[in-house]
Amino acid sequence: MNEAVVLTSERILEVTEDVLRRYGLAKATVVDVARALDVSHGSVYRHFPSKASLREAVARRWLERVSAPLAQIAAEPGPAPAKLERWLRELFGAKQRRVCEDPEMFATYLTLAREACSVVKAHKQVLIAQVEGMIAEGVAQGAFDVADPKTAAAAIFDATRSFHHPAHAEEWADCACQGRVDAVLTLLLRGLAAR
Amino acid sequence: MNEAVVLTSERILEVTEDVLRRYGLAKATVVDVARALDVSHGSVYRHFPSKASLREAVARRWLERVSAPLAQIAAEPGPAPAKLERWLRELFGAKQRRVCEDPEMFATYLTLAREACSVVKAHKQVLIAQVEGMIAEGVAQGAFDVADPKTAAAAIFDATRSFHHPAHAEEWADCACQGRVDAVLTLLLRGLAAR
Repeated sequence: MNEAVVLTSERILEVTEDVLRRYGLAKATVVDVARALDVSHGSVYRHFPSKASLREAVARRWLERVSAPLAQIAAEPGPAPAKLERWLRELFGAKQRRVCEDPEMFATYLTLAREACSVVKAHKQVLIAQVEGMIAEGVAQGAFDVADPKTAAAAIFDATRSFHHPAHAEEWADCACQGRVDAVLTLLLRGLAAR
Repeated sequence: MNEAVVLTSERILEVTEDVLRRYGLAKATVVDVARALDVSHGSVYRHFPSKASLREAVARRWLERVSAPLAQIAAEPGPAPAKLERWLRELFGAKQRRVCEDPEMFATYLTLAREACSVVKAHKQVLIAQVEGMIAEGVAQGAFDVADPKTAAAAIFDATRSFHHPAHAEEWADCACQGRVDAVLTLLLRGLAAR
């Protein structure tokens, strides 16, 4: 056992992802994670007191890898309409890349996310808050005319579900999807625009 | 056997729905349908040469009960924006009533529809064509400013999936859903509007 190396939560989560990839969600256990880290399973439990909390943390980490680059876009200076469009295209692109490049891990993460309702809900709130911020910026710039940026942000999120909700993932590889994205974005940005 | 009464396809489909309701999708057979009609199963096969074709016809009939009242709205005279809004609310309402009032039959029809891909595709095309017609009317009335009504119609359909695609059905009973519908419709109608 090599407990001399400092065991961080981040390190455990990294290795858990490897273990999930190797064994699959149904078979992977905390003991497998401990073995891959060369520590006792008690050491893992000191960071994640249950298998459920470890799985939840894996789901959270996965979702943060989607939201972090989006937060960067949202924080950039510049005209809000172009930024919002870039943000939405990055959201769709990130989801689509995940499905197309590694469909098995996508399915695994999806199952983890379904178990971790509150984590997914918080993730959605983070994303909608980013959109709300960009809409409010657009209003301040005189580019958008929106009574309630919070409601409009939720509407943008709802109206783009075809391109980011996993229930529609099997359509994303279709070439027609890009034209559909363009058409919906045109309509929505026009719906926000000041006249 | 009471073959004196004329056996129509419509009558077979009605009884098939009853049989599905009573026995469930997994257990219902063509023999059950024939027995409920008091005819030989050969008589049923003369109308529907296979179990698959019978199931497909049941799915088609179910979807037509959604599209028929919508076709009526689409054909009404009057300002296109209000009509399009009424049409979309009727679409969402029809789907939501089905789920809330009879969730078991909804699940049954959903399975049938999944098997009958081409039927669902045709149904979607019918609905999008109705939307396209209303958008073209709105353009003619000077109320909408849209370059390509066909593309815009598909975008309207995509952007409202949260409220009519069965993948999101479990959210429809939530009271928050009405506010979400209002917000998306406001955004979309504004996106179509001439300035």
